[in-house]
Amino acid sequence: MLNIWFAAGSHNWPDYALPLDEAFRAAGLDVRLSATPPADPATVDYIIYAPGGDVDDFAPLTRVKLVQSLWAGVERIVGNASLTQPLARMVDQGLSEGMVEWVTGHVLRHHLGMDRHIVNPTHIWDHSPPPLARDRHIGILGMGALGAASARALQGLNFRVTGWSRTEKRLEGLTCLHGAEGLDRILHQADMLVLLLPKTPETENILNARAFALMKRGMVILNPGRGALIDDAALLSALADGTVAHATLDVFRVEPLPADHPFWAHPRVTVTPHIAADTRAPSAARIVAENIARVERGEAPLHLVDRTRGY
Amino acid sequence: MLNIWFAAGSHNWPDYALPLDEAFRAAGLDVRLSATPPADPATVDYIIYAPGGDVDDFAPLTRVKLVQSLWAGVERIVGNASLTQPLARMVDQGLSEGMVEWVTGHVLRHHLGMDRHIVNPTHIWDHSPPPLARDRHIGILGMGALGAASARALQGLNFRVTGWSRTEKRLEGLTCLHGAEGLDRILHQADMLVLLLPKTPETENILNARAFALMKRGMVILNPGRGALIDDAALLSALADGTVAHATLDVFRVEPLPADHPFWAHPRVTVTPHIAADTRAPSAARIVAENIARVERGEAPLHLVDRTRGY
Repeated sequence: MLNIWFAAGSHNWPDYALPLDEAFRAAGLDVRLSATPPADPATVDYIIYAPGGDVDDFAPLTRVKLVQSLWAGVERIVGNASLTQPLARMVDQGLSEGMVEWVTGHVLRHHLGMDRHIVNPTHIWDHSPPPLARDRHIGILGMGALGAASARALQGLNFRVTGWSRTEKRLEGLTCLHGAEGLDRILHQADMLVLLLPKTPETENILNARAFALMKRGMVILNPGRGALIDDAALLSALADGTVAHATLDVFRVEPLPADHPFWAHPRVTVTPHIAADTRAPSAARIVAENIARVERGEAPLHLVDRTRGY
Repeated sequence: MLNIWFAAGSHNWPDYALPLDEAFRAAGLDVRLSATPPADPATVDYIIYAPGGDVDDFAPLTRVKLVQSLWAGVERIVGNASLTQPLARMVDQGLSEGMVEWVTGHVLRHHLGMDRHIVNPTHIWDHSPPPLARDRHIGILGMGALGAASARALQGLNFRVTGWSRTEKRLEGLTCLHGAEGLDRILHQADMLVLLLPKTPETENILNARAFALMKRGMVILNPGRGALIDDAALLSALADGTVAHATLDVFRVEPLPADHPFWAHPRVTVTPHIAADTRAPSAARIVAENIARVERGEAPLHLVDRTRGY
């Protein structure tokens, strides 16, 4: 009998209780799953974690073999000094598919200039077709699983896609830049920029005033990655001076986005409520059960977080 | 020296004059190209045609070896009894790519529920993610080049795609229905319906009151095909009673859509101004030149219209 503590927030419990139960059963695991903090922390075998859960101090959880995050982003736990147990990120097919759908949909929305048809109060019939996808440069910052999958989907629609990552990556048939010099090049070249980097000290404010100054006029920014990748004040300036034609943002430094934040009322900013890549409970529950079953079989868990890199 | 008459409307001449000149040169053709009606119709060798051009009576054009349409749809010329010369449709890569981009973009827009984020005056943060594409049924009526290419692109994004055509078609890895019974099935099954049929007596008003009555509640209709495929009054009724949640229409019985047409002001109808698959001059000019060069070499022209079927 394994003691598993669902320390992922009481608001998530109704969505996960049944799918986790089914997934543990399907994986052949004998489990006692609880959403309340344990009377004796030293009896817990596994933790299912999400921000907003009831765990801050991991030191007393001496028996824990794995902390499994329900989220892909782990920046709110990775710096916790009391966490010495192995930490695994969520890498869920549904999460990756959802991200590809959000990225592809919003790239096509801006590419086709849909907004002027969706909101057209004076009924303007402007018969000028958009350019073809093969004439648009899309830059993707971040070439992890989500960035690579998004790049492939956009290539499939004929967009000219260039990827960028901090350290060198190779993906067949895709131009991949890296490092500081590569960043300058992609910022200069792209018609639209998609941010899919993890939040680390190196990526925070990667889109700052200096970065915006390198971009083409009329740029479109899509951020389904992390709010802290963008210096909000620098983005507002770049919108004001015409460098950025539109920003569609799914993630923010504070969520929900506060009512008085200037992004809400800005006519050329679209706010989507952190839905680009939401973990879907049924598929995520299967991943959790499979990773715990791996550890029980004596194998290494999948998608372990590298604490020094932060993801 | 070939006499080629650009009978495709004076408004199109500025876009096409230079690209056609370049394409004829590249194809090694010695050509006199004119946009004005010939003094002697019997001297014309080829006609480049689009609706709105200056030709109605083809009988005096006795030497014409081919009438090459700039458009994929030829319903405004195919019934012209004076036209006995061979007629070729435009099948342009750019046209097909543009169509795939419009279809994929608007399917993703409705799939992701973008409109409520694009227009969100009360700043609602509603964190409920959309379903995944693999849980959406998209039906495509019309499995010609444009329908098949759109189906492939949507399959690539994991949508469940079913095609329908009047007569049986087979496409690997794609469920293709046909005939009256197949039509009822696809109307019943689809969450979104994309219309990519040619306009013929058999397809006119294919979406009539009977068809809307078979659909699921909350259906989305996308029409980048032909305006006459839809019975406008029946669509307005289906919008009123909730059968159709939204219609995004690119083509209309009269274009530009008249100012007093109810589609303009309807909150759940999006009008796009016939831009889904516009012929792009540079690529279309190459197709025109290549088809004329074929005829000059004694070969059959490509994409000949079958007059009995009407496309």
